Amino acid sequence: MSDDSSARIVADLHEWIASAPPGARLPSTRSLVARYAASPVTVQKAVRALGARGLVESRPGVGTFVRAVPTARPNDYGWQTSALGAPRFRDARRSTALRTAPNDVIALHSGYPDRELLPERLVRAAFSRAARGDAAVRRPPTAGLPELQAWFAAELGAFGAARPSAGDVVVFPGSQSALSTAFRALVGPDRPLLVESPTYWGALLAAAQVGVRVVPVPSGPQGPDPDEVARAFASTGARAFYAQPNFANPTGARWSPDLADRVLDVVRRHGAFLVEDDWAHDFGITADPVPIAARDDGGHVVHLRSLTKSVSPAVRVAGVVARGPARERILADVEAVSMYVSGVLQAVALDVVTQPAWRRYRRDLRHQLAARRDLLVAAVHEHVPTASLTAVPQGGLNLWLRLPDGTDLARLVRDCDAAGVVIASGDEWFPAEPTAPHLRLNFTGPDPGAFPDGARVIGRALADQARP
Amino acid sequence: MSDDSSARIVADLHEWIASAPPGARLPSTRSLVARYAASPVTVQKAVRALGARGLVESRPGVGTFVRAVPTARPNDYGWQTSALGAPRFRDARRSTALRTAPNDVIALHSGYPDRELLPERLVRAAFSRAARGDAAVRRPPTAGLPELQAWFAAELGAFGAARPSAGDVVVFPGSQSALSTAFRALVGPDRPLLVESPTYWGALLAAAQVGVRVVPVPSGPQGPDPDEVARAFASTGARAFYAQPNFANPTGARWSPDLADRVLDVVRRHGAFLVEDDWAHDFGITADPVPIAARDDGGHVVHLRSLTKSVSPAVRVAGVVARGPARERILADVEAVSMYVSGVLQAVALDVVTQPAWRRYRRDLRHQLAARRDLLVAAVHEHVPTASLTAVPQGGLNLWLRLPDGTDLARLVRDCDAAGVVIASGDEWFPAEPTAPHLRLNFTGPDPGAFPDGARVIGRALADQARP
Repeated sequence: MSDDSSARIVADLHEWIASAPPGARLPSTRSLVARYAASPVTVQKAVRALGARGLVESRPGVGTFVRAVPTARPNDYGWQTSALGAPRFRDARRSTALRTAPNDVIALHSGYPDRELLPERLVRAAFSRAARGDAAVRRPPTAGLPELQAWFAAELGAFGAARPSAGDVVVFPGSQSALSTAFRALVGPDRPLLVESPTYWGALLAAAQVGVRVVPVPSGPQGPDPDEVARAFASTGARAFYAQPNFANPTGARWSPDLADRVLDVVRRHGAFLVEDDWAHDFGITADPVPIAARDDGGHVVHLRSLTKSVSPAVRVAGVVARGPARERILADVEAVSMYVSGVLQAVALDVVTQPAWRRYRRDLRHQLAARRDLLVAAVHEHVPTASLTAVPQGGLNLWLRLPDGTDLARLVRDCDAAGVVIASGDEWFPAEPTAPHLRLNFTGPDPGAFPDGARVIGRALADQARP
Repeated sequence: MSDDSSARIVADLHEWIASAPPGARLPSTRSLVARYAASPVTVQKAVRALGARGLVESRPGVGTFVRAVPTARPNDYGWQTSALGAPRFRDARRSTALRTAPNDVIALHSGYPDRELLPERLVRAAFSRAARGDAAVRRPPTAGLPELQAWFAAELGAFGAARPSAGDVVVFPGSQSALSTAFRALVGPDRPLLVESPTYWGALLAAAQVGVRVVPVPSGPQGPDPDEVARAFASTGARAFYAQPNFANPTGARWSPDLADRVLDVVRRHGAFLVEDDWAHDFGITADPVPIAARDDGGHVVHLRSLTKSVSPAVRVAGVVARGPARERILADVEAVSMYVSGVLQAVALDVVTQPAWRRYRRDLRHQLAARRDLLVAAVHEHVPTASLTAVPQGGLNLWLRLPDGTDLARLVRDCDAAGVVIASGDEWFPAEPTAPHLRLNFTGPDPGAFPDGARVIGRALADQARP
């Protein structure tokens, strides 16, 4: 009898389903019980039978639904573009520097040092220790782990001048967040921000997303011309200048002490901020970076130091040193955007950089960077004779190569890619029109032994373009 | 002779220093050599002598400077406020929920479960494993570790409906970043966003920082009235609604299946997004949360799930499931704001939630939450008779207490604080004027044995206010 009832319900519902749209919900068990004057057990048995035939599916706690036939109705999210409106920033430049390359190519594009250049042993030991420590289960303050704040302050204080205190430091989950916050908190949408041209693509991306109006100031292997900086401040009314005074990415420029003084003077005269991105602090080769912030006791320099590239990509930790209201604005933004940085990452960063072996690691790294840089420089000189290397950088991770006028960069990148060599078009580093064709070649990728082969491929692809 | 020269230089420079402003830079060694016709060694000896007297200080690579007397010139960063302009959001509400309380108080204010409620053993083991794994030295893709994306997708897919794929997931360094990105990418500055009132203070903070225009929709222990939601959409032209349909913070509301359908219907009719903050997914007590996203196959629900509170505050990992252009906008924002999330945190999160012990942990947690909730409910009933508990929540971490009209909340918080009980004023959860005095009491703080004492203090402080 119950079997009969159940079969009757199945047949009836089968008909109902045939005319129902996919995704329609079956009446509840209770209402089916009422409709068919059957017991809940009978109804549920019928529904299970329909499920077994693939006609309906049950979602626990939600209900039972006519099964959607995946091919019947393709997704149409067109309504979303109307709801979203035109994007505020279209810049969505998925940078080449973030691209993950397969193992069998020669990778000269990356923004990150290869694994063999990392203090891997120190990092692993630090994570092991952190796994046993308090940081694994605690929430640190928004501004950062006090001991790590103190370390960032001491690092900058070692250069003398107005020694920052631990309280002047705000810890970020990586320098990208720090740039985003600095541009938002110190500049804001639709207001002007001076930047070197060319400059770091990640900073340009952060600026675009915040909606600041980027004002390019030409910069080369010697850094920017202070008079140009002054003109740009005067003509735009900007109150901030983003720069990389040491081993700039991509040019490798290191500002002379005199240039640093002159730019800082201009910044002071215009009552402005210098957002100093000290990204390559740990990557000196034949020179040691001296932060501009060490020359400032008026709160004009907002100093950004990252540990992600020198410690490990897994240790996303950066510190910003700022004073006065600027620091308050930055902290308020951090609370709204990220609330706090994982205490484990902060503990690991501090652990690594306070080990005696950290100094040894940095000494070794310097030798390795020098050897890799020189190898790539020699390879470029030999195999890419039409390119010119405006300067051999004294630090950093990259060579900045000027190519012959008229080079078709997109074609060059494509041709090299096809020949198994990944390179990054210099165009990605220009805030406006690129002023000339460039390549940025990273000398810290995997397998430096392949640099000559890589350079040969680039040279050949360039030569192909020169041919009529 | 060199000693004499040195003494002469010291005396001369001493005079110069006396009239120089602190921070002034001494002429370079080279120019002093020229001026005094002395050898560099002699000049350097003189400078060292001045340093020993505390008159100057050398900064390696920068120069030598007249020592600043810290008390002589207080810092004046006044110029900064002119450069910064008025803050775009003044909201800087340092929330009570983030406050770190000393050990000797009764803490009923926190937004985070106490350490003893965390799967501490699992977390530590996972960090140990991650310390040995690849994640410690690799950079994961911007959208997240593919295995973790797949897990987030599967968690939502388990409820049936349009099953998300791993590619629909974007991993964030915590839910605060996810909220910030969702509001920026889906709404944007000066555009309206519906929110429940009251609702999570962190979401209000993120909204204020993005500059979206918050539109409060009244909500209580039963959730919002769909007609109010519809009216708010219609009158403001909003295209997004931020809500916590399961165990809302602070009210504890859990939307009925019928309400969920009706609200989703309204959202669909207005071509809008529902940003579903499933913050308490792991904190069911007498009910299990069913995400609204499981009812949606049109890309209307953007689903946010965080692991920070249930795994560990050190594992700042959240996942957002979104489809179509919305997902693209979100991903573009993530690249600009944070680039990627530490692979170690992602590996640890995945490790913890895929252990067999994770299920056991959640079962235990449910019992503990139930016991703690009931203990605090009983304490409130007994010792705070003038307060009313509109509903005992079926999940989450908080009780939402309605206090008598006319209660001076600020005074109540202060009085309790003085008596060693930290509570959070309900006002922090209101996007506009609070409609009545409330307290949010968290039942997952340390030492539940002290709940009756805590309630007694609150009751007494309330009684004091009632006295004429």
